[in-house]
Order: sequence, then structure tokens, then C-alpha cells
Amino acid sequence: MARIVQKFGGTSVGDLDRIRNVAQRVKSCVEAGDEVAVVVSAMAGTTNQLVEWAKQVGPMHDAREYDAIVSTGEQVTVGLLSIALQNIGVDARSWLGWQIPLRTDEVHGAARIEEIQADEIIKRLEQGQVAVVAGFQGIAPDGRISTLGRGGSDTSAVALAAAIQADRCDIYTDVDGVYTTDPRIMPKARKLDSITFEEMLEMASAGAKVLQTRSVAMAMRHHVNLQVRSSFTDAPGTLVQNEEKQMEKQKVSGIAYSAEEAKITVVGLPDKPGIAAKIFGVLADLHINVDMIVQSASADLQKTDITFSLARIDLEKAVSDLTNLKDELAFERLVHDNNIAKISVIGTAMRTQSGIAKRMFEVLSEKQINMQVISTSEIKISVLIQADYTELAVRSLHDAFELDKIG
Amino acid sequence: MARIVQKFGGTSVGDLDRIRNVAQRVKSCVEAGDEVAVVVSAMAGTTNQLVEWAKQVGPMHDAREYDAIVSTGEQVTVGLLSIALQNIGVDARSWLGWQIPLRTDEVHGAARIEEIQADEIIKRLEQGQVAVVAGFQGIAPDGRISTLGRGGSDTSAVALAAAIQADRCDIYTDVDGVYTTDPRIMPKARKLDSITFEEMLEMASAGAKVLQTRSVAMAMRHHVNLQVRSSFTDAPGTLVQNEEKQMEKQKVSGIAYSAEEAKITVVGLPDKPGIAAKIFGVLADLHINVDMIVQSASADLQKTDITFSLARIDLEKAVSDLTNLKDELAFERLVHDNNIAKISVIGTAMRTQSGIAKRMFEVLSEKQINMQVISTSEIKISVLIQADYTELAVRSLHDAFELDKIG
Repeated sequence: MARIVQKFGGTSVGDLDRIRNVAQRVKSCVEAGDEVAVVVSAMAGTTNQLVEWAKQVGPMHDAREYDAIVSTGEQVTVGLLSIALQNIGVDARSWLGWQIPLRTDEVHGAARIEEIQADEIIKRLEQGQVAVVAGFQGIAPDGRISTLGRGGSDTSAVALAAAIQADRCDIYTDVDGVYTTDPRIMPKARKLDSITFEEMLEMASAGAKVLQTRSVAMAMRHHVNLQVRSSFTDAPGTLVQNEEKQMEKQKVSGIAYSAEEAKITVVGLPDKPGIAAKIFGVLADLHINVDMIVQSASADLQKTDITFSLARIDLEKAVSDLTNLKDELAFERLVHDNNIAKISVIGTAMRTQSGIAKRMFEVLSEKQINMQVISTSEIKISVLIQADYTELAVRSLHDAFELDKIG
Repeated sequence: MARIVQKFGGTSVGDLDRIRNVAQRVKSCVEAGDEVAVVVSAMAGTTNQLVEWAKQVGPMHDAREYDAIVSTGEQVTVGLLSIALQNIGVDARSWLGWQIPLRTDEVHGAARIEEIQADEIIKRLEQGQVAVVAGFQGIAPDGRISTLGRGGSDTSAVALAAAIQADRCDIYTDVDGVYTTDPRIMPKARKLDSITFEEMLEMASAGAKVLQTRSVAMAMRHHVNLQVRSSFTDAPGTLVQNEEKQMEKQKVSGIAYSAEEAKITVVGLPDKPGIAAKIFGVLADLHINVDMIVQSASADLQKTDITFSLARIDLEKAVSDLTNLKDELAFERLVHDNNIAKISVIGTAMRTQSGIAKRMFEVLSEKQINMQVISTSEIKISVLIQADYTELAVRSLHDAFELDKIG
């Protein structure tokens, strides 16, 4: 007997037949004696439709109203799945964010989970009732519905798993696990049986869309055992776990990419303390996530340039806000490029094995791919390149590190 | 300056353009200095889709889950209308049933409003903020979302008007007022400038769909001034008011009909006290509304028959439940007919003028329309007939009472 959180994404609950399939899957677990809490997303397409309406009804945006609108997608799914479960003899009830309550901070549209009061859910799990929990939503300090931002249902699932001290959190999705790279651009990509939290975190933040970064970080912090698996097959998925449990030892675990990046260079800043803090403070206030940052000396020694990457959708706003602060920050000009990709080579084995960076740069150089910015962590090397070279870079690196072979 | 509740139905908020039109209408009121609370339904078609899903996902029905699902329609509309208002410079915020809170009883799917705590809404109205309130929904004693049953948004609007002591409650709809009968089957039908609460109540309960019965009863009880008007034109609508204010004196105000009735006769009941109470007690427990009731002696003097009418959609369930109680109730058999219509002639002037019933029966008799059950109140005469004769009966009575002419 185990206590399990199962999370099903929008494709897995995309129509009534699929919802009934999910119910069957949950039933199998219940019949095996497990306590099950299910976290679901909105039916595929629903959230996009709701977001579209919220945008089209008027250009001025109230994130609190946006949250009231888009949170309805999950509200429908939890009701439907609960009915589907009851109809096959499984005791179940739906839980909306405000009913649990799952409390978040006040940042509507991109809220962070602060607390889950799960006592009532735990009590009912112990009585054999399945909890069907709406992902992606909570209640903000103002008493209104908040949403966690796109993909937030993974985070809901992990947070719930931590709150109810679940033995495992299974993330069901339309792929059957975590791959060495995106199989759509590299047919030789191989499914990994396991991956460490750190690697998964780097994969997710580097653009692998199978899990949301926040959910991996939260799982790591709260020691939640994660499994990524397919909702359409019974094949085992990929376990995300602590490094000491890791059996598979390989130089490099995967090649991740994000083709939706942009880059801004702030040229000719006065070279004095506090300038970088000011720029990134402004961007943080606007909830714009900055990724890679490089500071370099300008030709003029009294001046410096700062280059950073960010999501392409944030570029326009960031440029406009920084331009408004041109006098205050005393920079000369902004240069920006919206056609940037980030390519990352990831693996915990980098800690002990040298030569991976060198090999990566050689491969890209052989293919005439120019690296614009380089950033390294203990288990990852990322470079920014022109987005046009994304597929070529991924395939070349996957071959060079022989990721199609079990290491 | 007045405090006004405006209610817009599903057709009036059927797409984003219409929602923007509603926002303009609200803005005009606000600019005229009025305090405005708006109650909205789901976008036309949405609720039907949600109900369909809830039914199709499995035959077993949990009304609490049903409520969680179908209440999302209004949740989307209040968010969209609030954004539309903000975009034309009107301060507005959405209110869901649980946020107000609008408290109901525990009958999920057909709940009754018990209390509206409107202090916060009143405070904000006085500060100039428009309250955009989700119709049709509340919060039940179990802390879960409840819905008021189909058409419940009218009731929400009237209850809110009473709670905030509004000067007027305007029900915007796709017709421009209350007519002497349904203009779709009687082209000579005439729009009434005013009607009494009592007449409107009889019209509504006799099948005129312009206002929900419960909302009229509630308006009468709480002295809420109602107006039915079109959301597509600026023409004045129909005022629903107390009889003493009524200027227009006419024998008959309108002919109402309901073509979706059914009839059950319980044949051969033991003729002793308590039998009728038992039958209707069973039906009340099932939340099946019984309308007209006639008890008649059977050929066997120790026995009696009871005939009653009910909504056609409830027939199957009522027959099945009564059949299960055949032994307990000791009746001989059930006879039922699902092709029944109710035709009603309505007017407060009946109180003082005789001969209306006689004229009604003559007209139906001339047209060879058989009356199966007759029921009268102080201001209404209703008869059950075969549904096939509905249009003929309505047109003949409208002509006979000269309702196309102002009285």
C-alpha cells in the first residue's frame, strides 16, 4: 500500500473517453490498495481558448479576472473525472484550489504556492476516497482565485505530494518519459530509465518541456519521488531521483534546447557598482525572468556592456521598460535579437569528468555554429546560438556524445 | 442617482462583441451617476455543453460535481465582462457566489438562496465600483459550489437587488418585454407596458419563459421593482409592479402556455385519508414539482383516482418511483401521458369580473379541444389539453379576449 499522487495533463483528459480512461487507471491503483490523489489540467485546448477570450475582450489586462476565467478549465475537468470515477464504483470528490485551500502569494497569473492545508484530504484518503484536485490554481491573500502560470499543474501535483507525504508523484503525459533529447528533431533520442533531480532541473530550465522547472525544484527540495510516464501505455517511465540512487552512469545525460529565446545587450553602461543590480531589479519587478547573463568590458574602459537572455515573449516589454530608464541607468543604447536558441549539454558526471566543454565547443565549431554567450554550471554547459542552427546543433551533439548508446 | 441591478442572460453575453455591448450599457448608467451591480449568465450554449458533458461522462449523477462543472460558465462571463468594463474606463470586479458569499441550502443543482452577505459589495458600489456578479451560483453549507437550477440567474439578480436595496432590477433579455402571449405562435401578441407581480407570477408558472417564477415571487416578497427589457434596443420594456400602481385595466392580461407537460393518473387508490399526502410526499422528496392536481371518485366507491401534471422531463422518474411503491400505496395501476400542454388565461381583473371561465371553455369547445383537467386561482384559469392543440388554443383565446387591443 502506498500513497500516490497522479497528475494528468491536458492531452490525457482531452475528451470524455480519455477522462474515462484516466478513471480506469486511477481505479487500478485504488484496487491495488493505494491511496490516490489525482491532479488534473484543463482539457487540451480549453485553456488556450479561455486565454484568447481574456485577451480579445480588451487589451487592458486584470490578472485577477484572467485567473477567474482560465481557472475554470481545471474546474470542469475535476468535476467530470469525479463523476467518471463514481460511475465505475470509486468514491471520489473534486477539490478546487480555494476549497483545499491551496494558498498562494498575491502574484495573480504567476502565483507561487505558499501553503497547502491538506488535513481534510488526508483524512478522506485514509477513508478510501480519491481526491480529484484542480491543478494550476489556488487562492490568493485577497480571497480571489490565483493561477500558477502555464504548466503549473505539475507544480500543484508535486506540492500536493509533499503536503500529503505521498510515496510517489507520477506525472502522466503524452510522452513516455524523459529522453536524451527531443525525439522530434533527433530520431535516435533514447528514453532514460532514470535521471537525477539536478539533471532534470537543468533539462527543464534548458527547454525540455516534459516537466516544469518549478515542479522539479520543488520535488528536489521536498524529497518527492517523481516519475514521468505515458498516460496512453503501461510502459515504465523515467524516474527522477537523488543522485545516490542513480544506476546509469554516463558522461552526458541529455541535450536540451530552447528555441524561443531572445537576447538584449545594454551597451555603454558606466562601469560602477550597483548598475547590474538596478537593471535586473527593474526586470524582476516586471516578473521578467532573465536567464544567462554576461558582463564584458567595453572598448571604453570607463564603460561596460551587459548581455542577457530572456524568453522571446518578454523581449518587447523588457526593451520598452529599459528604454524608459535610459537616462536613469545612463547607458548608451540597447541591442536586441529575437532569434536566439539556447543549447545545453547536461550531466552530473561532468563533476568528475573533464573535457566535455571542450568537446561541445569543438562540435559546434566544426559545424560553423557561432556561440554568442556561454554559461556553465556544475552539471551543465549552455550556449546561445542563432535559432536557425538549433536542430543541427542538437543532432551533432547527440551523436558526438553517443547518447543513443546506453553508457 | 439610483442603485440598479442589471441582469443579462446568455444571449446578451453570447460572444465577445455582445459582452462589449453590455459593458457600454453599464457604462451609460455609471456615467448617469447610478450605482450598478450586474448579474450575468453563461455565454449562450455554454451551460448546455457543460450539462451534456456531465451527463455523458457517466450515467450516475453527483449534483455537487455537476454544480462545480456548470457554474464555470458564469465564472468565465463575469471575468470577461469585468475586463471589458475596465477597458472602457469603468472600475469593476467580478464576484463568484462563494466570494460574496451568496449562501444557499444544501440542494445541489436546484438550491434556494438563504442569505447574501452584501456589505463588501455595497461598500464598493458606494465607492463607484461596478460589481459583476455570477448568476445561478452560490455556496452550500458543505462549502461547495451550488447552483440554483436552470434560469436561476433571474433569481440571483432579484435576490441581490433585495440584499443591496436596489431601486430597480432590470432584466435584460432577447425579447423586449412581456407579451400578451408568445409572439412566435400569435403574431398579434402585444407588448404590455406593465403587469402586476401576481399576473407575472401566474404567467411565469404557466410557461411564459421571460422570467423565472421564483424570481418573480422573490421580487414580490421583497418589493423589488422589476423591469423586463431588451438588451439589443433602447425601447422601454415591461414594468412588473404592485397592483395599485397598475394603470392598464384589462379583463385578461395574457395567455400563457407550457407545451412540455405530462400527466399521471394513479388509478384505484384506497379512498382514505393520508394517501394523497403520501404520494406527493414521495415526489417532493425526489424534487419533482407537481403542478395541477385533481382527485376524483372511481367507479368503485371504496376507491379513488388522483391525476396530476408535472414537467415532461420528470415523467419517467416519477413513474418509476411510484411503480416501486405500488404495494405500499395499494393502487391498481398508473396511467400516464407525455403529450400534454397547459393553457392559462391570466388577469387580476378576474377578481371583479365574472364570465371569463365560461368564455374560455366556450372558445375551446368551439374548436373541439378537450379539456382534461381544470384548475383555477383568483387570477388564473388553467386547463390541460393534448399538446397538439397548443397553438390553436392560444390563438383562439387571444382573439376571443381581444388582447391585441389596449383595454
